[in-house]
Amino acid sequence: MTLENLNIVPFVSVDHMMKIVLEIGVEETLGGIADYIEEDFKRWEFFDKTPRIASHSVEGVIELMPTSDGELYGFKYVNGHPKNMAEGFQTVTAFGVLSDVSNGYPVLLSEMTILTAFRTAATSALVAKYLAPKGADCMAIIGNGAQSEFQALGFKTMLGIKKLRLFDVDPAATEKCAANLVDKGFDVIQCKTPQEAVEGASVITTVTADKQFSTILTDNMVGSGVHINAVGGDCPGKTELHKDILTRSDIFVEFTPQTRIEGEIQQLSDDHPVIEMWEVMRGEKKGRRDNKQITLFDSVGFAIEDFSALRFIRDQLQRTGQYQNLDIIADPDDTRDLFGMVMRAKANL
Amino acid sequence: MTLENLNIVPFVSVDHMMKIVLEIGVEETLGGIADYIEEDFKRWEFFDKTPRIASHSVEGVIELMPTSDGELYGFKYVNGHPKNMAEGFQTVTAFGVLSDVSNGYPVLLSEMTILTAFRTAATSALVAKYLAPKGADCMAIIGNGAQSEFQALGFKTMLGIKKLRLFDVDPAATEKCAANLVDKGFDVIQCKTPQEAVEGASVITTVTADKQFSTILTDNMVGSGVHINAVGGDCPGKTELHKDILTRSDIFVEFTPQTRIEGEIQQLSDDHPVIEMWEVMRGEKKGRRDNKQITLFDSVGFAIEDFSALRFIRDQLQRTGQYQNLDIIADPDDTRDLFGMVMRAKANL
Repeated sequence: MTLENLNIVPFVSVDHMMKIVLEIGVEETLGGIADYIEEDFKRWEFFDKTPRIASHSVEGVIELMPTSDGELYGFKYVNGHPKNMAEGFQTVTAFGVLSDVSNGYPVLLSEMTILTAFRTAATSALVAKYLAPKGADCMAIIGNGAQSEFQALGFKTMLGIKKLRLFDVDPAATEKCAANLVDKGFDVIQCKTPQEAVEGASVITTVTADKQFSTILTDNMVGSGVHINAVGGDCPGKTELHKDILTRSDIFVEFTPQTRIEGEIQQLSDDHPVIEMWEVMRGEKKGRRDNKQITLFDSVGFAIEDFSALRFIRDQLQRTGQYQNLDIIADPDDTRDLFGMVMRAKANL
Repeated sequence: MTLENLNIVPFVSVDHMMKIVLEIGVEETLGGIADYIEEDFKRWEFFDKTPRIASHSVEGVIELMPTSDGELYGFKYVNGHPKNMAEGFQTVTAFGVLSDVSNGYPVLLSEMTILTAFRTAATSALVAKYLAPKGADCMAIIGNGAQSEFQALGFKTMLGIKKLRLFDVDPAATEKCAANLVDKGFDVIQCKTPQEAVEGASVITTVTADKQFSTILTDNMVGSGVHINAVGGDCPGKTELHKDILTRSDIFVEFTPQTRIEGEIQQLSDDHPVIEMWEVMRGEKKGRRDNKQITLFDSVGFAIEDFSALRFIRDQLQRTGQYQNLDIIADPDDTRDLFGMVMRAKANL
């Protein structure tokens, strides 16, 4: 263990991440990350908050998502390329860095493709703790791709969801999701239509992947008292819900300026009222008021959630030993003698 | 060599970078990077250009510098912490990433503390090719810290500078710089004052490190016909030259919106005329007009230079083999089955 050696940065590879998650347990990881997110959301005013910095191309987008709480700085690199799947690549891949604000040195580099799936599900389930109707035990999941099982397990561990009603335009995706969850303690129903999926569900999770305006849920599908966890609409021009659902719902968001650009509420006027979840978590605003209210979490994914997830992983390194040391920071003996350090390396050739 | 294997990203460590540079040669590396920068500056309109994204704290700053030419995307992480040196850390450390715009996958992760020193010196010398007076063979270097030797060798290889006049407020820094350059073919004079250093020099390089307004050069020290390479003033509140020098000079910059915020010209009005170097390199604007003109390169460091330097390093990987493979991209067989990939990793525990 050489975390004290500042020229060396611990790196958590994809393989390390899988081993950390399996050693801790999937549900325990989801719960642990949710705790870190809740802790960070409750100290909201400590954080630098900026919308993500996006570089758009015809094929997709590459984004940087930085934030800082004044002691640690973190950023995530993440791409979104909807056409990747057809070519055998991941639609979304990610990695991230935590740094020490006091000297600017990185303290963790980590894969975040897997970690992003965990933090997204952890955020959804954490938010639902405040918004879902009491005693909710049945959830519809519309969109059964890479994120779906993580959502299911997040809601199981944090809300006690036991029944899943799955739908995807591709039945093979539903089959895959059901197969992955077969021994996880759910009662799983594979549905043929979105209408069938939402029947009797008190939580509706939408998590589809098209980069376009589409209408996964129409107004008549959403009954009173339901909590909608809208995860898939997360960039300009990409939404999942019919506008009429939005106007019937109380809308909760992560960070308003970003959600206005990327979320379902890009369909509404810029002054449509929304509540930020940190306000609910701190008890400053009400979450669910009664059992008839429709609550909507318009999730787009915010930098603080990645920051919290990286903090969680960093705190598992000692315990699991799952990382390797990267020689990424030049560290000359005399800090002014970078050139001399390079020249002296000749001796090692 | 598995550069074709897209879930694996080649990583150039500090040790690899030193070996690449020594194998190629320091001057050849400076010249090679300068060629890539010149090529990229000449196709200026291809690039996304945004000022860097800075996170400021009491102790320093952490910045992300992204850019893209539509085929490759690059960003650099860089910190600046002036108090670090006294605590035994580097003032500036950096690393960077190149990615494939078409699918968003990273294709290179590299240390950039050393590489930034090379790209900064390569940019300075490249710009001086267009601006320094003909036949310049003597350069003053005021500030003899980590960047100074790279500047000296850049100007030697690209301009034929043979005489160096060194000054630093700390004579030990000058001693270190002179010692590092002793067998590099220079006539080196260690000076006791900045005034002494600039005597007879046709190029004046200022490369000091304080994070504050200071006056390294006063007006009476700068004679006609000189080229000033002002490298050290590179963030809001940090400048090196007296304002009167600026008003006597023709001022050349990398990217005007960024230099107005970070460069020497933050001392001038927002409409003070400046020329961007890509215009000079393409022959669309004049560089040096005559042997009386004072030219000033107000260098702050721009994202395209880092992009060019990363491109150069990427092109050395096959030849030198100096990299290691990082398992940083999750790559499930079925792209929708991230969860299944994690679960199946149990078999390898």
